[in-house]
Amino acid sequence: MCQLLGMNANKPASLHFSLAGFLCRGGRTGEHSDGWGAAYFDGPACRLLVETAPSADSALADWLHRQPLRSRNIIAHVRKATRGAVALENCHPFVRELWGRQWAFAHNGNLKDPHLPLRGRFTPVGTTDSEHAFCYLLETLVRQFGHRAPQPAALYAALAELAREISACGSFNFLLSDGAGLFAHCSTTLHVLERGYPFSRARRVDDGVAVELGHHNHLDDRMCLVATAPLTEDESWQALQPGELRYFRDGRDLPQGVEKRAPLLLAV
Amino acid sequence: MCQLLGMNANKPASLHFSLAGFLCRGGRTGEHSDGWGAAYFDGPACRLLVETAPSADSALADWLHRQPLRSRNIIAHVRKATRGAVALENCHPFVRELWGRQWAFAHNGNLKDPHLPLRGRFTPVGTTDSEHAFCYLLETLVRQFGHRAPQPAALYAALAELAREISACGSFNFLLSDGAGLFAHCSTTLHVLERGYPFSRARRVDDGVAVELGHHNHLDDRMCLVATAPLTEDESWQALQPGELRYFRDGRDLPQGVEKRAPLLLAV
Repeated sequence: MCQLLGMNANKPASLHFSLAGFLCRGGRTGEHSDGWGAAYFDGPACRLLVETAPSADSALADWLHRQPLRSRNIIAHVRKATRGAVALENCHPFVRELWGRQWAFAHNGNLKDPHLPLRGRFTPVGTTDSEHAFCYLLETLVRQFGHRAPQPAALYAALAELAREISACGSFNFLLSDGAGLFAHCSTTLHVLERGYPFSRARRVDDGVAVELGHHNHLDDRMCLVATAPLTEDESWQALQPGELRYFRDGRDLPQGVEKRAPLLLAV
Repeated sequence: MCQLLGMNANKPASLHFSLAGFLCRGGRTGEHSDGWGAAYFDGPACRLLVETAPSADSALADWLHRQPLRSRNIIAHVRKATRGAVALENCHPFVRELWGRQWAFAHNGNLKDPHLPLRGRFTPVGTTDSEHAFCYLLETLVRQFGHRAPQPAALYAALAELAREISACGSFNFLLSDGAGLFAHCSTTLHVLERGYPFSRARRVDDGVAVELGHHNHLDDRMCLVATAPLTEDESWQALQPGELRYFRDGRDLPQGVEKRAPLLLAV
């Protein structure tokens, strides 16, 4: 099994504090030492970092921590190989272009003998059940919507249906982003945290390091974090229910993938 | 205009010596300071590094030089923006999956008002003429060969025809690789070098640094380098003719994309 971490923010934000704890799980506080990866969106472009080394001892992860990289949408993954060898092409996230957007996808779970026929529009490069399911998901979206991207609500409904279908083959916790928003599906285990003003003090579960989040954020910064297991001790992580699909955009949790609430006004 | 560098080798090889000279052209010895990128194949997987900073002053390039990265197929590019803003999504190489392989592509030249209609199978994420031409090239291959990869000779013939067609819109020097071999098309300027035993001493054009290649290679190491302008002074770079398409595999130049020569025997 693997672990997932995703972030969606209203402004380009650093994930360094949360990512540092998460990457400990790749060989130090967790057994997920068969590779790791992170996809950082920069507008429509997507920087993909993948490595077969354990993230806890990775020179690439060290380099990443020293960079001033900020993004509104990030997906990270630490891998414990269950299907597919330890190889670069089997490291998540996987990235494909659809509708002129890059889509990044990472999966936690096992899909047993998935009956998910592919027609050649998207073909796995590696040998994981995860990349196969991602290709199936994208092919189904193309079959349903053709060559034009649908509205967010229609896409949400299609993904919810697809997530139900694929979950019948096994556990299918996933994160999916096109750089505009972040979809998160809970099949067995996934936790969500909304961070915004007033910011609290947070202490990382994996190594005990604490930080005053208010010192690192502006009053109007807002983000949602999604992780397999909570990353901090002092914040209100919410466990998603099996079968739930969430959509995060501009640092907000949007039920059914659409904006139903009035924009929040900050009480300052 | 931009500059291209490609390498194809018979064994995973370091490109550090040549790349260091090449990246000087991104803002030091050349004006190509609007971003750079490199695609390193690792088996079927492709590591893509892209940055909008000039390569000559890049922290990412510094990091890359300190890594023991070896690859059999590498494509690098330094950009001088002519079409498309300075943005990450406009940095070459571009990568797309086709036939279960990653394909990396980089272009040097300008395509004026290219009449290259796209049907939605591959859609540019950025705004360059180069990515548009790459999408057109891949779409045409899918139309011609469907969902199964053709044999190398058939692919070579199709690419030669496509290169002719797209070159009618402007200059279309390009490098293309799927991690197995490297295609290089000369529309205006491209140079090729075959390196193998006996290895010579080589001195970089861009900064004068010299190295005894024999100290860094085994007797059976063999590689082909392709660059917009020669990178070294003491080696026999060969200028390609306008209209030529070359295919390199296992460190050899294969005319027409097929193996016609008996394997070379080393005289040791």
